[in-house]
Amino acid sequence: MIGVDFGTLSGRAVVVRVSDGAELGTAVHEYTHGVIEDRLPGTDVRLAPDWALQSPHDWLDVLRTAVPEAVAAAGIDPALVIGLGTDFTACTVLPARADGTPLCQETPDRPHAWPKLWKHHAAQAHADRINALAAERGEPWLPRYGGRISSEWQFAKALQVLEEDPEVYARTERWIEAADWIIWQLTGVETRNVCTAGYKGVHQDGRYPSEDFLAALHPDFAGFTAKLGHELSPLGGLAGRLTARAAGWTGLPEGIAVAVGNVDAHVTSAAADAVRPGQMVAIMGTSTCHVMPSDRLAEVPGMCGVVRDGIVPGLWGYEAGQSGVGDIFAWFVDHGVPASYTRAAEERGLSVHAYLTELAAAQRVGEHGLVALDWHNGNRSVLVDHNLSGVIVGQTLSTRPEDVYRALIEATAFGARMIVETFEKAGVPVEEFVAAGGLLKNHFLMQIYADVLRRPLSVIGSDQGPALGSAIHAAVAAGAYADIQQAAAAMGTRRDNAYLPDEDRADAYDRLYAEYRTLHDYFGDGRMLHTLRAIRNEAGK
Amino acid sequence: MIGVDFGTLSGRAVVVRVSDGAELGTAVHEYTHGVIEDRLPGTDVRLAPDWALQSPHDWLDVLRTAVPEAVAAAGIDPALVIGLGTDFTACTVLPARADGTPLCQETPDRPHAWPKLWKHHAAQAHADRINALAAERGEPWLPRYGGRISSEWQFAKALQVLEEDPEVYARTERWIEAADWIIWQLTGVETRNVCTAGYKGVHQDGRYPSEDFLAALHPDFAGFTAKLGHELSPLGGLAGRLTARAAGWTGLPEGIAVAVGNVDAHVTSAAADAVRPGQMVAIMGTSTCHVMPSDRLAEVPGMCGVVRDGIVPGLWGYEAGQSGVGDIFAWFVDHGVPASYTRAAEERGLSVHAYLTELAAAQRVGEHGLVALDWHNGNRSVLVDHNLSGVIVGQTLSTRPEDVYRALIEATAFGARMIVETFEKAGVPVEEFVAAGGLLKNHFLMQIYADVLRRPLSVIGSDQGPALGSAIHAAVAAGAYADIQQAAAAMGTRRDNAYLPDEDRADAYDRLYAEYRTLHDYFGDGRMLHTLRAIRNEAGK
Repeated sequence: MIGVDFGTLSGRAVVVRVSDGAELGTAVHEYTHGVIEDRLPGTDVRLAPDWALQSPHDWLDVLRTAVPEAVAAAGIDPALVIGLGTDFTACTVLPARADGTPLCQETPDRPHAWPKLWKHHAAQAHADRINALAAERGEPWLPRYGGRISSEWQFAKALQVLEEDPEVYARTERWIEAADWIIWQLTGVETRNVCTAGYKGVHQDGRYPSEDFLAALHPDFAGFTAKLGHELSPLGGLAGRLTARAAGWTGLPEGIAVAVGNVDAHVTSAAADAVRPGQMVAIMGTSTCHVMPSDRLAEVPGMCGVVRDGIVPGLWGYEAGQSGVGDIFAWFVDHGVPASYTRAAEERGLSVHAYLTELAAAQRVGEHGLVALDWHNGNRSVLVDHNLSGVIVGQTLSTRPEDVYRALIEATAFGARMIVETFEKAGVPVEEFVAAGGLLKNHFLMQIYADVLRRPLSVIGSDQGPALGSAIHAAVAAGAYADIQQAAAAMGTRRDNAYLPDEDRADAYDRLYAEYRTLHDYFGDGRMLHTLRAIRNEAGK
Repeated sequence: MIGVDFGTLSGRAVVVRVSDGAELGTAVHEYTHGVIEDRLPGTDVRLAPDWALQSPHDWLDVLRTAVPEAVAAAGIDPALVIGLGTDFTACTVLPARADGTPLCQETPDRPHAWPKLWKHHAAQAHADRINALAAERGEPWLPRYGGRISSEWQFAKALQVLEEDPEVYARTERWIEAADWIIWQLTGVETRNVCTAGYKGVHQDGRYPSEDFLAALHPDFAGFTAKLGHELSPLGGLAGRLTARAAGWTGLPEGIAVAVGNVDAHVTSAAADAVRPGQMVAIMGTSTCHVMPSDRLAEVPGMCGVVRDGIVPGLWGYEAGQSGVGDIFAWFVDHGVPASYTRAAEERGLSVHAYLTELAAAQRVGEHGLVALDWHNGNRSVLVDHNLSGVIVGQTLSTRPEDVYRALIEATAFGARMIVETFEKAGVPVEEFVAAGGLLKNHFLMQIYADVLRRPLSVIGSDQGPALGSAIHAAVAAGAYADIQQAAAAMGTRRDNAYLPDEDRADAYDRLYAEYRTLHDYFGDGRMLHTLRAIRNEAGK
């Protein structure tokens, strides 16, 4: 079984044994164009701030290189491969012709013809209008998204295309998630998965936003949903069979099963065997994404979204997120740590992160006297406000970098606790907190999360969660298992109680968390932080 | 004329021409023992945290070395010198025998026998008790000190001696400011100046706190004021004549006039020729001290003190302060600026301060999106709370060190504006803001202060303000001028309108200042900051 994870900077293929999920071989392909932020490839066309594009060529290169390399690394006969699953960042979306040809192949000098990466943030004004109108009209889908949709999603990005390059918009016959486009390339069949349709495409209760609503945004936007897919495919379903062309790219047998497209975060649930109600998987990296199946439908304030069948068929799938986690620590290490620390870390053969962690780990809870708000990149869940910013309270002339580093880590843990508590308060129980993602390797950080959350932490057993999850979905699509739950139980891997909370530290953190909540309430209304941002924007930064 | 300034780490002598204040020669002597914080000199006796002592030998060494060196540097005949003036840090205070012998000469192994430097902060508990009792009893002197006296002052430090080493307390025949002790050594006569008696010794309306009050603090404290001086000498007055022994130390003529002792900050007013009502002199260095004569008596909330004749005879002298200014910038440069900046500064041949200043100066007001509270070392005036701490609001992943640096500078300027406005609101007009001290050399910072304060800034013309001020006082004591005002007009030096506010920037700063005030109110009650400090202290930092 093959799982392919299409990330922000690279794609990764993993060969997985169907019987037990053992990872037999892996290979990575770094995208040639990476994230396109400055200039369109091969042109002099410059991009405005907040733009972020990708190239479909890079994605196909992953199929051509990483997949055969992973098979070679596994040392298996490609003929043994019975299925292929993929996952993608989302909402990464592109305009295409009716046959799937990306518009950027036709007009590579038109920015709006290119795929917009998830973190393209230039459609904020469009999202604001969508949210205002939806709130005004009381659109029934709005509460499913915590009361606000993101500028990252399909409708905001499409409205930006329509209004800024109507010619490209007119030529767009299909507006499709990359998650589904790659499946189209593999199978020759256009499918649309329920996950991206629900979380990014505002598909709820069997329909997209109404023509009436879209027309009120812009008359020419009325018919937009004709460019989308209306028959959705369930997760773990069979999208189609590998075409001869795609078999040529990958070196895999023609005709093997290809699973319906998926999203990197959501598919990780299967890899962690955390697909039962109340199992919250936190994929912790530069930012954190929380996904959780539940048997209850509730309107959880400030969540990213709840989608029927959005993680596994038959359950409601919840998503929440913290927009800044690892990238806050990276920002601090890059811009707030003095030369003496950099030198000391080098002399010890440690990364600056590891050195700060060592110093911070020697402290007792609260010894630094600090509490921070982790909003350096805005707040994605609970407050859903990208115009918030970071706060740090309690600095003295004795404050040292490790103090701030620890306070920032704690702030993200407090942010996670806010999310968990918001779910539970809304009547959606969180039974288990399962950590995944790159931050797993920082044991000090994980222990802080356990102490702050006052609950045992489970951790995923694989460091290739998305690719493994995709392979699990492929196993279901290929008929090796009856459903995702069964496949996940056999192939997924999770270590329960990897970190246990310490009662004393948890009590101490309760006191700091109370201060965090106070700051959260005080600054969360945005009065001061929006003013500072407005002043900043007027001053022209 | 000779002025000698006894600072925290060194003493400085300046030879000044009586006719016009020209500085003819100068010399500095670094104290051999510096600030004694860890261990008593020549012993194994260790000091507790927050202790800070000095050695009287170091002070005498200044007379023996810096004074003759300054005369030599000036190239004048010592016989031409007609007077000597001094100033000291305060409250720097020592226990002595009736003949002036410091107790530390008798028992150098007893910490409490040594002079306590102004920044000895180990008597906070004693100050707290004094304040609580004074408030409870409604002591009439309390409002003269903004409602709270400092742990740095004479009574708190003396009460600490009594309770922690009653034997030393019993042997203390004179409890005397170093400012007066040095005059005693020069003249052989014990005098007490009105300035330290008023600001540090709680001498108001002709008396010290009552025996009754002191007895309520501790029965054995009742007679404490017998160890003080009750006949106070006016500033600019003649303390006595240089003894033969002191003439031997200094190489100056025996019998010349020696002025009454003084405090470094207050005497700077004369050097800046800013001794008329409403002229506020801000001595800006690691911290800032504000001194201002006024013809009005008012209770200004949260001021350090108001003392009749405390700066010049015939006027009320106000004092206020900001406990962290330059030391906040230094802390940030030492602990918050990455190696890349250190390197870039080195390559440019700039200090990190200068490099950050250059980057920050290129910004428009508010472009950094930040606002900070300058309480990293507590708040000395307005709130009078050493247990407050710093806050910074508005950081994003784009925040860079120069942004924070600028925000910290602005925070101190906002703090200065709070003080000015508090005076004016209390009915004590501030007619002119005169800057002095080491931060004068940062023109960017000075311009920010002008913009934030919305008023022209005058600056002192000398970079040896205290020593020049002492020489001016000496000129009055020697009879060369009728009073301090006349001497200051002739010998002091001030540049008016050195920095003019820019209307647009001032308007922009008004908006940021409004946010600063909001933070000031929100965090100023100490609820959160005291909690964080309590948690910190319990955790044992």
